[in-house]
Amino acid sequence: MGAEASICSTNGVPLVRNISELPQSDYGRGGLSHITVAGSLLHGMKEIEVWLQTFAPGSRTPIHRHSCEEVFIVLKGSGTLFLAPSSHAKIPGEPHEYPIFQNSTFHIPVNDCHQVWNTNETEDLHVLVVVSRPPVKVFLYQDWSMPHTAAKMKYPYYWDEECFHSPEPKDEL
Amino acid sequence: MGAEASICSTNGVPLVRNISELPQSDYGRGGLSHITVAGSLLHGMKEIEVWLQTFAPGSRTPIHRHSCEEVFIVLKGSGTLFLAPSSHAKIPGEPHEYPIFQNSTFHIPVNDCHQVWNTNETEDLHVLVVVSRPPVKVFLYQDWSMPHTAAKMKYPYYWDEECFHSPEPKDEL
Ligand SMILES: [Zn+2]
Ligand SMILES: [Zn+2]
Repeated sequence: MGAEASICSTNGVPLVRNISELPQSDYGRGGLSHITVAGSLLHGMKEIEVWLQTFAPGSRTPIHRHSCEEVFIVLKGSGTLFLAPSSHAKIPGEPHEYPIFQNSTFHIPVNDCHQVWNTNETEDLHVLVVVSRPPVKVFLYQDWSMPHTAAKMKYPYYWDEECFHSPEPKDEL
Repeated sequence: MGAEASICSTNGVPLVRNISELPQSDYGRGGLSHITVAGSLLHGMKEIEVWLQTFAPGSRTPIHRHSCEEVFIVLKGSGTLFLAPSSHAKIPGEPHEYPIFQNSTFHIPVNDCHQVWNTNETEDLHVLVVVSRPPVKVFLYQDWSMPHTAAKMKYPYYWDEECFHSPEPKDEL
């Protein structure tokens, strides 16, 4: 079994894990550091998933929505939550802006479009993120005036791509 | 509307909350500090709930089980996880012991009996806890040889008691 297969196997994963030894990557998104602390694909979670993420100054999530619940805990740093309240309009529209700060928490109302942005020019933003019903299915927007119907589904999401498909046996010949 | 009613109302709760300003109590359990960071009864969460807990040296959870998923993140301190693996036996039996430590994470297999104990003699144990399908319904054991059928259901759980019942209008006369 190759190295890639064992990364995606829940077998042999110790019950108590050192978070600083877990796989960490930017998954192609500049300024991001993502660690799946407890995950559906990596650890067999069925109802909740926990991520530890760091956003460098200026970096941010895409504008996006999802039907799962999501809770943020800000461990360090500060930034801005952009949130377009749920509506029956065709586009998210101008978002509200909420300052977020160390030792703050917030949750995203289901299906509301949102973006978390490290608007602090010098300090990293460290957040713990909890989502329900993993793996997460996300709809991405290029801007706040993009019609909901044009949002692009991203599933599996960035960090779920590698382990999403069960490995198919390769023909060695 | 009295102070008690407003503690249990999700109306007017700000979207971004300062965790250090949230209600905190030992809920009658010595050595515990519990904060519901994002809760079913307090904040309208339906699928996940997040707690911040501190255990003084020597303090611990009861021996218990629940059918929801539960993830722990150890923010500070150390201790011991006691876990009786899932079995079809009539009692939990002798638990396995796992050292837990700062920056470690673990999840509790659904329905397995467990106990988290601050076995560090000098340092507080700080954990962030995530559970699914709140509010949590817990079965309590007095010891590891108590039959599963004798475990006592605790529902609502300690911190859910105050806000579990919708307040009934009181006759002012
Ligand atoms: Zn989100
Ligand atoms: Zn538990």
